[in-house]
Amino acid sequence: MLSFIGALEARANTVDSLLCVGIDPHPDMLSEDTPMASSELCLRLIESCSPYVCAFKPNIAFFERHGAEGMTVLRDVIAAVPADIPVILDAKRGDIASTAEAYAYAVFDVLGAHALTASPYLGSDSLAPFMNRPERGVFVLCKTSNETADELQGLLVDGEPLYLHVARKAKSWSTNENVGIVVGATDPYALACVRAAAPSLWFLCPGVGAQGANLKAALGAGLRSDGMGMLVSVSRSIACDSDPAGASANLRQGINDVRRASAST
Amino acid sequence: MLSFIGALEARANTVDSLLCVGIDPHPDMLSEDTPMASSELCLRLIESCSPYVCAFKPNIAFFERHGAEGMTVLRDVIAAVPADIPVILDAKRGDIASTAEAYAYAVFDVLGAHALTASPYLGSDSLAPFMNRPERGVFVLCKTSNETADELQGLLVDGEPLYLHVARKAKSWSTNENVGIVVGATDPYALACVRAAAPSLWFLCPGVGAQGANLKAALGAGLRSDGMGMLVSVSRSIACDSDPAGASANLRQGINDVRRASAST
Repeated sequence: MLSFIGALEARANTVDSLLCVGIDPHPDMLSEDTPMASSELCLRLIESCSPYVCAFKPNIAFFERHGAEGMTVLRDVIAAVPADIPVILDAKRGDIASTAEAYAYAVFDVLGAHALTASPYLGSDSLAPFMNRPERGVFVLCKTSNETADELQGLLVDGEPLYLHVARKAKSWSTNENVGIVVGATDPYALACVRAAAPSLWFLCPGVGAQGANLKAALGAGLRSDGMGMLVSVSRSIACDSDPAGASANLRQGINDVRRASAST
Repeated sequence: MLSFIGALEARANTVDSLLCVGIDPHPDMLSEDTPMASSELCLRLIESCSPYVCAFKPNIAFFERHGAEGMTVLRDVIAAVPADIPVILDAKRGDIASTAEAYAYAVFDVLGAHALTASPYLGSDSLAPFMNRPERGVFVLCKTSNETADELQGLLVDGEPLYLHVARKAKSWSTNENVGIVVGATDPYALACVRAAAPSLWFLCPGVGAQGANLKAALGAGLRSDGMGMLVSVSRSIACDSDPAGASANLRQGINDVRRASAST
């Protein structure tokens, strides 16, 4: 059985893509604010983008907005993703172990996602129920892309920002080859420091597109030496494009151009 | 209109109680692992304990386990709580602002909770959608009661553990009188340090009962000088008691005995 990271790398190689498309049916994007309209948006996006993506990343908050019906839509949306494409549920969960067991069951077994995002704030026992299943994965929040990220993440511990300590801990936790970290693409310097601290981990990197990160700078800072190890996560700028298939194909190409150029230098 | 903390204090005074009963329908506690059995357990607990509690705290993970039906149960369970009892949804959410808006809508408007627990890891802009509504509240994770809490929370920043910095930040964030913090009852020394750092904040304190915290030591360390400011959160030891009403009444009394004794010394 492949570990989660093994499956992710297999998919990245098969479609030659590091693109992760976010599935965030924000009410702004919907013709009407209903579960049905959310479902249609998500299914269209999956159909259009599947040939070009390494992974999909639905954000559960936009489904929770619709209550029980939203959960049914989310389960069906995840089930509509072709079986060889990893689905990372953006859920940012983090609770004590007995509760995290319930989240693991909800996310992996009920909703059918392959991985989730989770917070490191409670430490490793809160992540164990996710990490204990090698074929499922967890991306631990490390350095996020929002404005106030550094209020906590940037505090200095032994002369280094907290997020670097989180990166090193995550590296030590990945004994089942199923732990990655979330590192915003908006701060290439931080991205480079995290890469130095965790040379082999996979990064889930939001911030390209709506949040304005520079793709070339981010890839230069975050790619592993083998040109892998970074999922470029884009939501709004693909979902809102009149041609999401074309937008994904272009972004995949844009990412690969930088990968090839950096490999040849 | 009362702020969330205003409403919480009004309730604490009306029933002379600092007891918060957790509503965590863990599969171990159910006659069968179904949404219906969860619902029955929760409704019984609410009916039995309402006269004695300051607040109820359902943990959303145990409802998410049941998928869409679980969300319907959770909404109905919250609706069954008498209107003057604050409901704090234990959800530990934490995401960038546009996503946190969706969580705020889901938790406050769809599910009908009055407050939620949330993670500080993304900083204040991730909490703003919760804090911006004075009549709704947020308890920010500060020092949790699990074994590995100190892997992050105990790291030293300027000579002090990270959780004390979080406590001070939370104090500065409560401009709408609607921010509290989560501080485990299992570590009285830490509780006392947090109280010194945030003399006026309300603490939500899990750890009494199943997790073994000493009630007297915890209250001695965490109560405000006015004998308020601390919600003692107990789940399993009340839900699993053959007489949850009696267990709640006893625990309320036990808490009040310590409050009165410490006020008279």
